[in-house]
Amino acid sequence: MPRGEFSITSKRQMEFIDITRQLTEAIVSYGKINGLCCVFNPHTTAGLTINEGADPAVRDDLVGAIQKILPLEYPYRHNEGNSPSHLMASLMGSSVSLLVTEGRLQLGTWQKIFFCEFDGPRTRRVWYHLQVDME
Amino acid sequence: MPRGEFSITSKRQMEFIDITRQLTEAIVSYGKINGLCCVFNPHTTAGLTINEGADPAVRDDLVGAIQKILPLEYPYRHNEGNSPSHLMASLMGSSVSLLVTEGRLQLGTWQKIFFCEFDGPRTRRVWYHLQVDME
Amino acid sequence: MPRGEFSITSKRQMEFIDITRQLTEAIVSYGKINGLCCVFNPHTTAGLTINEGADPAVRDDLVGAIQKILPLEYPYRHNEGNSPSHLMASLMGSSVSLLVTEGRLQLGTWQKIFFCEFDGPRTRRVWYHLQVDME
Repeated sequence: MPRGEFSITSKRQMEFIDITRQLTEAIVSYGKINGLCCVFNPHTTAGLTINEGADPAVRDDLVGAIQKILPLEYPYRHNEGNSPSHLMASLMGSSVSLLVTEGRLQLGTWQKIFFCEFDGPRTRRVWYHLQVDME
Repeated sequence: MPRGEFSITSKRQMEFIDITRQLTEAIVSYGKINGLCCVFNPHTTAGLTINEGADPAVRDDLVGAIQKILPLEYPYRHNEGNSPSHLMASLMGSSVSLLVTEGRLQLGTWQKIFFCEFDGPRTRRVWYHLQVDME
Repeated sequence: MPRGEFSITSKRQMEFIDITRQLTEAIVSYGKINGLCCVFNPHTTAGLTINEGADPAVRDDLVGAIQKILPLEYPYRHNEGNSPSHLMASLMGSSVSLLVTEGRLQLGTWQKIFFCEFDGPRTRRVWYHLQVDME
């Protein structure tokens, strides 16, 4: 059962954190397997996405622009006041799936995997699971 | 081939319906398996998401706020008049993936699985598929 | 290791391209397998989604309306000027998962699989991976 988890600590209320290296190192430890990796976020005010990792301005634009999408004036009823963060979580999604070849995550040239923090700062967990191909 | 489907009936035009219990019962019937569960929505004006299930106000806020995101004034061409519902479906996504440990769905403390109805009320189906880990 | 890729060429800056037939033909070539298909988009200004394929007006509405969601006036910092395209990519998601029964993709009556081009025209690649059920 190749699966596990790791922790990350966000430093701002909202930010996209590159978790590609942590996930890569976790996967490599299982050897040169082929299969599919499911990465899962167990939190309700955070999400996961895959996007450009070369220019840090892109992730700043993503976290900035997603806040502009959501209504501020909507009469939210959830009294913790973080309903927009919950909706952002669903817009990004709770998991990403990636192909794994000989122990390496298959990403496009510019792609990195991001943990989307929408209600930080705090410590968060990321779960992963590997489905190994049959020979 | 551990897979199946179940039905749900929505009562409003738009609502988020907690399907965690139905899915849990379906999965448990396969025994104490380890693996990954893919839940799939075969409808084009509905989606699936994972979000907070403790306070019902959150799901009401989600369904309320997502309607505020979409333009009403855009000159939609699809003559059934439900194009915003189709876009909401794509924003939420057609499937969710979940880890399964000894027959139990692995969710975060506050997470529940929601069927997102965007064009109800009507009866809908939910498909699921279990990938069982190799021993 | 049943996996592969195929190419598509977009003709407009933004458009939703139906890739159901290409994917169906790719999957059929592996025989009458049962399992799960993960389709992955390796680009950062494109996405994948499943939505209505019967009326072409729906996909036109989707690509039109998603551009109305995003702010144009937000002071984006990424100097390639395509930050809205990156956010659209994350809103749609980088992958879709589908059940496969005897070599056939399982879709709802009106569903088709779309490649979401947000920064075309150009040639794009689509990756797919099949997890085969154990007997």
